[in-house]
Amino acid sequence: MMVLITYDVSVTTSLGRKRLRQVAKQCQNFGQRVQNSVFECLVDPTQFVELKHRLESIVDPETDSLRYYNLGANWKRRVEHYGAKETYDPEGILIVDANP
Amino acid sequence: MMVLITYDVSVTTSLGRKRLRQVAKQCQNFGQRVQNSVFECLVDPTQFVELKHRLESIVDPETDSLRYYNLGANWKRRVEHYGAKETYDPEGILIVDANP
Repeated sequence: MMVLITYDVSVTTSLGRKRLRQVAKQCQNFGQRVQNSVFECLVDPTQFVELKHRLESIVDPETDSLRYYNLGANWKRRVEHYGAKETYDPEGILIVDANP
Repeated sequence: MMVLITYDVSVTTSLGRKRLRQVAKQCQNFGQRVQNSVFECLVDPTQFVELKHRLESIVDPETDSLRYYNLGANWKRRVEHYGAKETYDPEGILIVDANP
């Protein structure tokens, strides 16, 4: 399933900026960045649980916000893009992580 | 239908910062801000066309990015939130704009 993840992390402190980098890094492990704070992650339900667990252990729930949108299997017809950065097909590429 | 709108607007220039404000203002006319650059808009198809037209006349497609995610009618089961800012029910409130 395709899960869209959006986040706001408070970056008024150096700890906040560290959290922001950590959140982005975890999302990158599971999906594709499509905007600064927006990732599209093609995951199975187990991976989704794992990703949520990781993200929620990083953020400060008092100041930071995470939102997950389950776009389901027919997600392609739900997405439209305009402007900079091309859309991509995450099912059409193979990402190999040499340092898992 | 519920449409999620996410945007990245390049703010390296004063014109960019103006575009960012204008994009946010148009989104506010149609929906609810849930994160800095993320709006959830409960619109009918005609309103969606109108909103897209307005946003795409504001942004610079060379530097800015707009993404639309149509979450459909059963959108509530697709959304999860963690952390700061409460979720809300856009179908449960009535917003009256005294200065339309």
